[in-house]
Amino acid sequence: MEISLRELAKLLDGKVVGDGDVLITGVAGIKEARPGDITFLANPRYETYTRTTKASAVIVDQNHGSVDKPLIQNSNPYYAFLKAVKVFHGEQEDVLSGIHETAVIGERVKLGENVSLGPYTVIRDGVEIGDGCVVKAGSYIGSRSRLGRQVLIYPNVTVREDSILGDRVIIHSGTVVGSDGFGYAKDGGAYHKIPQVGNVVIEDDVEIGSNVAIDRATIGTTLIKKGVKIDNLVQIAHNVRIGENSIIIAQVGISGSTEIGSDVVLAGQAGLVGHIKIGDNARVGSQAGVTKSVPANTSVSGYPAQPHSLSKRLHASLQRLPDLIKRVRNLEKKLEELGEKSGK
Amino acid sequence: MEISLRELAKLLDGKVVGDGDVLITGVAGIKEARPGDITFLANPRYETYTRTTKASAVIVDQNHGSVDKPLIQNSNPYYAFLKAVKVFHGEQEDVLSGIHETAVIGERVKLGENVSLGPYTVIRDGVEIGDGCVVKAGSYIGSRSRLGRQVLIYPNVTVREDSILGDRVIIHSGTVVGSDGFGYAKDGGAYHKIPQVGNVVIEDDVEIGSNVAIDRATIGTTLIKKGVKIDNLVQIAHNVRIGENSIIIAQVGISGSTEIGSDVVLAGQAGLVGHIKIGDNARVGSQAGVTKSVPANTSVSGYPAQPHSLSKRLHASLQRLPDLIKRVRNLEKKLEELGEKSGK
Amino acid sequence: MEISLRELAKLLDGKVVGDGDVLITGVAGIKEARPGDITFLANPRYETYTRTTKASAVIVDQNHGSVDKPLIQNSNPYYAFLKAVKVFHGEQEDVLSGIHETAVIGERVKLGENVSLGPYTVIRDGVEIGDGCVVKAGSYIGSRSRLGRQVLIYPNVTVREDSILGDRVIIHSGTVVGSDGFGYAKDGGAYHKIPQVGNVVIEDDVEIGSNVAIDRATIGTTLIKKGVKIDNLVQIAHNVRIGENSIIIAQVGISGSTEIGSDVVLAGQAGLVGHIKIGDNARVGSQAGVTKSVPANTSVSGYPAQPHSLSKRLHASLQRLPDLIKRVRNLEKKLEELGEKSGK
Repeated sequence: MEISLRELAKLLDGKVVGDGDVLITGVAGIKEARPGDITFLANPRYETYTRTTKASAVIVDQNHGSVDKPLIQNSNPYYAFLKAVKVFHGEQEDVLSGIHETAVIGERVKLGENVSLGPYTVIRDGVEIGDGCVVKAGSYIGSRSRLGRQVLIYPNVTVREDSILGDRVIIHSGTVVGSDGFGYAKDGGAYHKIPQVGNVVIEDDVEIGSNVAIDRATIGTTLIKKGVKIDNLVQIAHNVRIGENSIIIAQVGISGSTEIGSDVVLAGQAGLVGHIKIGDNARVGSQAGVTKSVPANTSVSGYPAQPHSLSKRLHASLQRLPDLIKRVRNLEKKLEELGEKSGK
Repeated sequence: MEISLRELAKLLDGKVVGDGDVLITGVAGIKEARPGDITFLANPRYETYTRTTKASAVIVDQNHGSVDKPLIQNSNPYYAFLKAVKVFHGEQEDVLSGIHETAVIGERVKLGENVSLGPYTVIRDGVEIGDGCVVKAGSYIGSRSRLGRQVLIYPNVTVREDSILGDRVIIHSGTVVGSDGFGYAKDGGAYHKIPQVGNVVIEDDVEIGSNVAIDRATIGTTLIKKGVKIDNLVQIAHNVRIGENSIIIAQVGISGSTEIGSDVVLAGQAGLVGHIKIGDNARVGSQAGVTKSVPANTSVSGYPAQPHSLSKRLHASLQRLPDLIKRVRNLEKKLEELGEKSGK
Repeated sequence: MEISLRELAKLLDGKVVGDGDVLITGVAGIKEARPGDITFLANPRYETYTRTTKASAVIVDQNHGSVDKPLIQNSNPYYAFLKAVKVFHGEQEDVLSGIHETAVIGERVKLGENVSLGPYTVIRDGVEIGDGCVVKAGSYIGSRSRLGRQVLIYPNVTVREDSILGDRVIIHSGTVVGSDGFGYAKDGGAYHKIPQVGNVVIEDDVEIGSNVAIDRATIGTTLIKKGVKIDNLVQIAHNVRIGENSIIIAQVGISGSTEIGSDVVLAGQAGLVGHIKIGDNARVGSQAGVTKSVPANTSVSGYPAQPHSLSKRLHASLQRLPDLIKRVRNLEKKLEELGEKSGK
């Protein structure tokens, strides 16, 4: 495929600066781009690469005109680039269509229009699946679960009974939705299982990565609100609630009944104890161990997690500690000498 | 369903305090309860909620009579509540019965009474499955593995060859039991795989969460003893041994050949190096990095893990370090002045 | 099985020291061995066990002759032991042969000689599978993926479209190769998915554990080079590159576009931010949080990761901090007294 920068700019709602006749044949990251590619600059840290990139053109924001290349200006260069990727690559997915003859479909199942069920899918009794949903090979949808419209379930996913998924939810392979919460009552030295009779509700436009575990509520609902994006290998315990458009990076663990606000970012491998609240727009650093609630609009890091600026100051202080020990020893020596002098 | 508090108390082996005629229609947590619900008070931290809960009755311990509500007293309020949950909710599971026509069953397989095998299950040669076992859709039981009685395997579980599971073991979706241990011999700059010829033994009443990985022993047995409860996304390496009734919270990692005693708690995301021992009743804090053996009845935290009281003291000291640096600078200045005075 | 030490030594390319007629009937670790077993000594830390082991013979390195047992000397005792394990145990795997009648094979699929496909495997359109490959029950190979020769895929693995696997690759159960990278563009307060149009390439002799997640590249390739060994529950994000013979221990997380050199060791639960480089032969300690690039041949640990020797010194200093605080208070008191004396 080959398209002029001018035509491409129209498709991306962008404005050309420089030669609109240059031909674009592909898309690439700023460091990997070769002649013919268009790339983008979103993060100012990558500005220096605009001088060395081999790309034929760059997507920049509308205030940016100093790059010595043909440009497309757009108020969101990253999102415009996303559109460019679609122009060149389209959808490359394994396409499924229709109900495979091996799909095992229970009783009282309602299937919408244009539903696709892959080989060896199992749809249990009372399930409802909305228009345009795709459930790929080997996936399991438990009894009475409901999928909205255009839900995409990759191969080998398990959705346990009574789960409710909104529209356009995407779940990647190996993920388990609705497994039992981890709850036991100790009695006579042994643990007895607490029945986990709640469910999981996942709202519209949520995407969940691979090998994630989301437990059903003990009673009530484990709730993932609209637009939340969850990376791979994340643990979400029973009765957790996650607010709209929050981002949960890989290998994060959230303990039972903790509430995450909206627009929160939990960076990779962070761990949160149970029964706390993370306020809206808060940010939890990677590997942070959060042991108490975090106010809205704040940033925490470290273990136990503290305000990020404090964590940084303590870390900087710690670097000076070995020297400080020497200085204190030196002071003690001098003081002793002084004491001896002045004492005698 | 509707039942009087008096009748419910009999089912829970409890004693009514107050109006035994009040009608109970459901169960709920103390904060979520509505009129008609019964709730419970186990953790004294929740005591204040007994004044605000909308529940019609509360299960409390036998020394507790001051709540202004009808009560059921029982020596273990949490466990009594568990029984109440069962009274109102029963079992809501996807019920399986019988051998699905698509189950692939190998040669020399022995099935007990009332075994259920879901769609697309695969049972390899020489497997033995005890009375009342349920293996759900898409799960795999490798050659020569043995399941005791009333084992419950959720969908899409993999149990590799030669695994031995006791009675009433529960394994949640996505979990892998018996994958090869991580063992290589370096020779000529490259790694050569050590054959992993041991197995995994899981004793009675063990429950294992979703997407857990339990490796088979290199030689011998990876052993999970009676009553152990394992949360989601836990890593258990080859030749690990876990003692009775220990609790392993989500995302913990246990390296090869480490031995965990009985009644141990490993909190979330803790990591343990290989070839160490964790004594009985020990407690490892969340995210702790345990680099050496931990004596029985002790509590460790931090990285590298230290006695918890020491970790806390060091953490508290660290908060004072920036100020301490200033104080030392101040001392140095004063001492210099004093030195100048006394020196001259 | 029973074999003389002399005959066994020939099979292991080793040299007998002591009685070559002793009969060997099995293999075991140095602590677990019983009479009749052969064991090995690779790690000098285990030297004391050579005096207490019940093994009938020990494999040692060629400079080692002081053990009071019959020996086999070999330049790599661990690798020689690996060969001994094979002599006694052979392969115990579930053996698959041929294409199971339930395998769903798409259009334009090319299968080599002696390919085995287990029950309920799904092979999508355009896939190529080389000679001697084994794909076990319930596994999925996405469209256009290519497997080299003698690849071994355990049950319930998902390999997404366009993945390329070299020769002798082993992938354990529950693992997902080629799920979408975690990439979104924020626009109008919500996140929009960036199409992930790259793929995953896994070179020869790579082994990948259970429940691992390896994301496809946004554009280009997520690359795992020859001989890399990956343990269970590891997260490898989009566009990561891992050099030859590197070792990634359980629960490590590697963020997007980070490059790992060759012969690197990432210890358990370490986390690496995106867009950094880990030099050849570097070692990242367990639970380390790596926030910037690590030079070749260095060792880092802690959070944020620092040179390991520095981390250790800081940790040792920290132990002295509570005492240091007291000493500074003491100095202040003395100085005040001195000041009072000299001032007056």
